[in-house]
Amino acid sequence: MLTEIKGGNTMKLVPLSDRVVLKQLEAEETTKSGIILTSSAQEKPQEAEVIAVGPGGMVDGKEVKMQVTVGQKVIYSKYAGTEVKLDGEEYIIVRQNDILAVVE
Amino acid sequence: MLTEIKGGNTMKLVPLSDRVVLKQLEAEETTKSGIILTSSAQEKPQEAEVIAVGPGGMVDGKEVKMQVTVGQKVIYSKYAGTEVKLDGEEYIIVRQNDILAVVE
Amino acid sequence: MLTEIKGGNTMKLVPLSDRVVLKQLEAEETTKSGIILTSSAQEKPQEAEVIAVGPGGMVDGKEVKMQVTVGQKVIYSKYAGTEVKLDGEEYIIVRQNDILAVVE
Amino acid sequence: MLTEIKGGNTMKLVPLSDRVVLKQLEAEETTKSGIILTSSAQEKPQEAEVIAVGPGGMVDGKEVKMQVTVGQKVIYSKYAGTEVKLDGEEYIIVRQNDILAVVE
Amino acid sequence: MLTEIKGGNTMKLVPLSDRVVLKQLEAEETTKSGIILTSSAQEKPQEAEVIAVGPGGMVDGKEVKMQVTVGQKVIYSKYAGTEVKLDGEEYIIVRQNDILAVVE
Amino acid sequence: MLTEIKGGNTMKLVPLSDRVVLKQLEAEETTKSGIILTSSAQEKPQEAEVIAVGPGGMVDGKEVKMQVTVGQKVIYSKYAGTEVKLDGEEYIIVRQNDILAVVE
Amino acid sequence: MLTEIKGGNTMKLVPLSDRVVLKQLEAEETTKSGIILTSSAQEKPQEAEVIAVGPGGMVDGKEVKMQVTVGQKVIYSKYAGTEVKLDGEEYIIVRQNDILAVVE
Repeated sequence: MLTEIKGGNTMKLVPLSDRVVLKQLEAEETTKSGIILTSSAQEKPQEAEVIAVGPGGMVDGKEVKMQVTVGQKVIYSKYAGTEVKLDGEEYIIVRQNDILAVVE
Repeated sequence: MLTEIKGGNTMKLVPLSDRVVLKQLEAEETTKSGIILTSSAQEKPQEAEVIAVGPGGMVDGKEVKMQVTVGQKVIYSKYAGTEVKLDGEEYIIVRQNDILAVVE
Repeated sequence: MLTEIKGGNTMKLVPLSDRVVLKQLEAEETTKSGIILTSSAQEKPQEAEVIAVGPGGMVDGKEVKMQVTVGQKVIYSKYAGTEVKLDGEEYIIVRQNDILAVVE
Repeated sequence: MLTEIKGGNTMKLVPLSDRVVLKQLEAEETTKSGIILTSSAQEKPQEAEVIAVGPGGMVDGKEVKMQVTVGQKVIYSKYAGTEVKLDGEEYIIVRQNDILAVVE
Repeated sequence: MLTEIKGGNTMKLVPLSDRVVLKQLEAEETTKSGIILTSSAQEKPQEAEVIAVGPGGMVDGKEVKMQVTVGQKVIYSKYAGTEVKLDGEEYIIVRQNDILAVVE
Repeated sequence: MLTEIKGGNTMKLVPLSDRVVLKQLEAEETTKSGIILTSSAQEKPQEAEVIAVGPGGMVDGKEVKMQVTVGQKVIYSKYAGTEVKLDGEEYIIVRQNDILAVVE
Repeated sequence: MLTEIKGGNTMKLVPLSDRVVLKQLEAEETTKSGIILTSSAQEKPQEAEVIAVGPGGMVDGKEVKMQVTVGQKVIYSKYAGTEVKLDGEEYIIVRQNDILAVVE
């Protein structure tokens, strides 16, 4: 049985290195950006909002400069990222390299 | 059941780093460039038009200079890229390295 | 049959290079940070406390600077790390690169 | 059903980076160069003519200098390349690195 | 049938490059350090004593500085190393990179 | 049915980069060099004569200097190389790195 | 049927680059060095004598300095190397990197 316990609002995810915390856009939001909605969607939409951005810097010996900013809508690679639940909310943590494009 | 909702025309994909947004050429267009048409095509044609081009720059620690430009017809690698739907239109986002040749 | 023998408190793990010793947060602790609790949890929560941090330095020929500190709560990659038992306590040793984010 | 539509002669493939467009030598041509002909050949001959040569330059962060020229007969690696049809003609696009030898 | 023949005490293993010769701690020793003992242990404990340390230096084109010393107790990666028998004693030869932590 | 058509003697393979054209030594020749002969050999002998040597130079971004010369007998790696037929003769094209040793 | 034909004593293997020619120690020799003998050994002992040593130098773009010398007894990695027969004798050709330790 699942028991969901909400922590305070002060909990937040601070990504390391070139990682980015994403939050998948919910149905009503994805509608606005024109993503096709399916009542029996098997694949989650790959559109998400940027929630937090790591500092970049030296990653695997290579200088990485972060190119996305909090609040942007992005398309990310289907097979990338780690799902994390915090305060009953689901997030996806990806490397910036798994973000394909910004939706403007 | 699929429900397609069209967003405004202002929605657009802005690719990151060395990525390129492609749009597969439709049947009537591929005809012009001489691609063989099959009524029961199982493989999608690999010819596409360049819709948007990322800025290039440092990618995996290596300087990448973009060589394709918007509007070009290109041949891309069959197993590459991520399909994305936006405003009811399908796009493919590939790395420039997955573009094999420009069709002139 | 398991026989558990507790060593002295002086036993400690000193990680090499870019490794970090983690201790998974127990149920009562994870509650505080809002992680969903399940009575029949099959996946261990991926939230852990940093117990010890390696010195960093040259790792595989690349300079690695440690970014986490003892006492921080972190999210780490599900498939990473080696489980180790010492003094009847379970620890996980991961590379810093397998730590996705700090929970604040 | 296959419907082949020939485009104008002005259509051509311009390979990017270190890629080379090849055209397999047909039976009557391979005869001239001494390749064994089989009436039930299961493997296509790996001999081909160079049709177009990319500009070389920085490829995956390494300087590549093109060493083959249009018109040369070459042997290329069996498992390499992407087949492309243009104007009803089949081409193979390979990286220069997949060309093993020139036949003189 | 196993026939064990003991060589002289003068036989010793001198590891090359970044390799380290380890000897697994026996039950009575692992007790001291608090490792859980099981009468039907299927996994060998991953705690071992450092017997010999290679010189380090250039390994795969990267400078490696040895960080462990003879006599230290270490935790090493479960899937690493090569088992070797010499003078009826079993040793494990690992790369220093497969040593996760020192137990103090 | 195999039909073998011999080209002129002027046909030759000119290997690119760090590639080497080899010709397996036939039974009567391998006898001279002491290779074991089997009447039902399933593995081809790995001894071969160097027929042509590429220019070396920059290969995958690394300077390669050719170390074998035409006429040498060499041992090459079993799983390496591409078999090629020219003028009814079988050749193997390997990278120099797949040549293990010279037989003198 | 195996037919063994011995060549002259002048035949020898000259390894290229960072390769080393090894000869497995026979039972009576391995006894001296204390390796456990089994009457039904399924794994060959991994102890061998160094027969010939390549020149080292630039290997895959990295400077390799040879650290073993002819006549040394060494332990090598179980899954490494290529077996070669010359003059009815079996040899193993390994890269120096597959030699784990010298037995002194």
